[in-house]
Amino acid sequence: MDDLATTLFSLFILLLATKVGDELFKRIGQPSIVGEILGGLLVGPAVLGWYQITPETSLFAQIGAVLLLFEVGVHTRVGAIMKVGGTALAVAILGMAVPFVAGYGLATLLDFSQTGRLFLAAALTATSVGISSASLRALGALGTRSARIILGAAVIDDVLALLLVAVLAGIASGGTSPAGLGLALGLAVAFIAIVTVAGTGILSRRPSLLTAPRFAETPFLPGMIVMLGLATLAAAIGLAAIVGAFLAGMVVGESSERDALEAETAPVAAFFTPFFFGFVGAQVDPAVFTSPQALGLVVVLTLTAVVAKFAGAGLGAIRTGRWRAALIGWGMVPRGEVEILIAGMALAAGAFNPERYAVVVAMVVATAVLVPPVMGPILRRAEPDLSAG
Amino acid sequence: MDDLATTLFSLFILLLATKVGDELFKRIGQPSIVGEILGGLLVGPAVLGWYQITPETSLFAQIGAVLLLFEVGVHTRVGAIMKVGGTALAVAILGMAVPFVAGYGLATLLDFSQTGRLFLAAALTATSVGISSASLRALGALGTRSARIILGAAVIDDVLALLLVAVLAGIASGGTSPAGLGLALGLAVAFIAIVTVAGTGILSRRPSLLTAPRFAETPFLPGMIVMLGLATLAAAIGLAAIVGAFLAGMVVGESSERDALEAETAPVAAFFTPFFFGFVGAQVDPAVFTSPQALGLVVVLTLTAVVAKFAGAGLGAIRTGRWRAALIGWGMVPRGEVEILIAGMALAAGAFNPERYAVVVAMVVATAVLVPPVMGPILRRAEPDLSAG
Repeated sequence: MDDLATTLFSLFILLLATKVGDELFKRIGQPSIVGEILGGLLVGPAVLGWYQITPETSLFAQIGAVLLLFEVGVHTRVGAIMKVGGTALAVAILGMAVPFVAGYGLATLLDFSQTGRLFLAAALTATSVGISSASLRALGALGTRSARIILGAAVIDDVLALLLVAVLAGIASGGTSPAGLGLALGLAVAFIAIVTVAGTGILSRRPSLLTAPRFAETPFLPGMIVMLGLATLAAAIGLAAIVGAFLAGMVVGESSERDALEAETAPVAAFFTPFFFGFVGAQVDPAVFTSPQALGLVVVLTLTAVVAKFAGAGLGAIRTGRWRAALIGWGMVPRGEVEILIAGMALAAGAFNPERYAVVVAMVVATAVLVPPVMGPILRRAEPDLSAG
Repeated sequence: MDDLATTLFSLFILLLATKVGDELFKRIGQPSIVGEILGGLLVGPAVLGWYQITPETSLFAQIGAVLLLFEVGVHTRVGAIMKVGGTALAVAILGMAVPFVAGYGLATLLDFSQTGRLFLAAALTATSVGISSASLRALGALGTRSARIILGAAVIDDVLALLLVAVLAGIASGGTSPAGLGLALGLAVAFIAIVTVAGTGILSRRPSLLTAPRFAETPFLPGMIVMLGLATLAAAIGLAAIVGAFLAGMVVGESSERDALEAETAPVAAFFTPFFFGFVGAQVDPAVFTSPQALGLVVVLTLTAVVAKFAGAGLGAIRTGRWRAALIGWGMVPRGEVEILIAGMALAAGAFNPERYAVVVAMVVATAVLVPPVMGPILRRAEPDLSAG
């Protein structure tokens, strides 16, 4: 009973702190995710020490990440991505390639290990779908062509980043031999392809399959079973569990009862994901930032992340016009959960020390805070019809 | 990553097994809870050994119990219980007192320890709201006066049983001195009274309090915070965490956005509670039932549970007429989660050995299976207007 009370207290205080942080950041017009991370930092071991990192509380954080990616998967429509087509693909690929190269170069300059360079490069690549879409929604711009391209690109971006995560998981567990890398990449591609093709194929032929059992009035519980199953399978073959969870969400999202699925997944994800973002904050030791070197690294890394993504993604969208390209480039700047997951993997694998982990988290926080205030002015130039409509 | 894969596999296989059990039992018209328990037994350590009982997987089971009682609390209306009034109260009190005395007597005959007698007596008392209401719903009888009395009595019954659980938690941790018992009872009453009066008082004055924060469009997330907080507090002062969770649900259920709260709590509870019932099954070693002594005890205990509850609850309802009293008595027979929780506490405290734990679980399963088939014939006599309406 005492163990249970201790665990319950950690979960209680973390949920409370993240939601208070969320609330304060919502009131000052800043992204929730940043408030949740700072709430976790405050009650975590490095500051107040009320939230303890134990195997039990960590499980809640990991399930939070799994559910977060499942929910992103549920909202990912394979068909919708196809429609936004070429521009989104160009934005995604250039928007990842330029930051990857810039990050790799920066890590080389800073004398990171070979594995550390790959992790730092990867930790600059993916746009956060959550923060982009929240910013666009706040500006009433979700229906614009720019927004569709940004969201389409962010989704492609997520898929590519998860491929990268899969490869990095292979590197973290195995080593960096070309054969091992090739095997990890092959496994990841095969896993993603088989699950996507077989899963969406089966569900498009029988869209009511998941609600056929009597215990399931909606695809939610079958979806949770598929999520845990594919997350286990992904983790068991050496990929990240979240890769399996994302694919599970994407496949289950093709079911006929999609609205009910989304409605039921939302509260479960809303309950769990604060434990993930709070855990992220709790792992950061703010004492790190008293070193001028670490602070300098945060500034350099954030600048690299912002400039490289803006340039790469903007270049990918250049044929939509100068201001639209600027809006799209800027809209792709926010980083989020994927970077944090990659930094966490690097920390667990010993490729990052706690300082570098904290620096990457600080970079994510900085991009998330920087983007929204500048988006409005660019939007007014890129989509002049919007304020009239 | 390997630890995570192992834990995810345990969670996956338990959710799959409980839901397959649920499905099979739904198809043969039997209660889901029994199917879930048997599914857990099948994949648990004693049979297939696929589901491992670890601190991490146990946490999911405990959170499952917490959410189950929170959800029962959300559906408990303080006002509605008041309305069913005297009859429900008489049904509840006599329906608990007779089984308690019978259970205590049986345990004394069987030479249980003093603590063991109290636990066995308590493990016969509470009706399962879930199984009663599911049976009545299946017969289309939820709107009848008998059903309202049964459900009102089952709720009062739950509150009294949780008081009993609180006292037993004191006994399990402290000892059986009259002073310790009195203190535990006093603490339990004070905790329940303060939370109920203060909580419902605050919410009836400001029914939109829980949706005041910007992070909360519905009372769900504030409710989860209150649930974890009161569960922690209850566990910290030596009561059962589920007592706090039940009160949290009852208080939060008085909020103005009750429907949204119920809609959002349902999927979270649906996701978690199978881990609790599956865990219950996984703790049972079916080898126990190869001993004729244990099998005999199951039969005797089940008969005691059925006869004592039917007689006590029926007597409490006797002024509603003979057949109504029989229907109400029979409707109160199913046991459920509270008995299993009490047996689990007794197992953890050393008052029950694994055999006695398994026997109580088997008794719960037996009452849940016995009730539904006999309910229809009694219902037709007790509420003859029903088939006409």
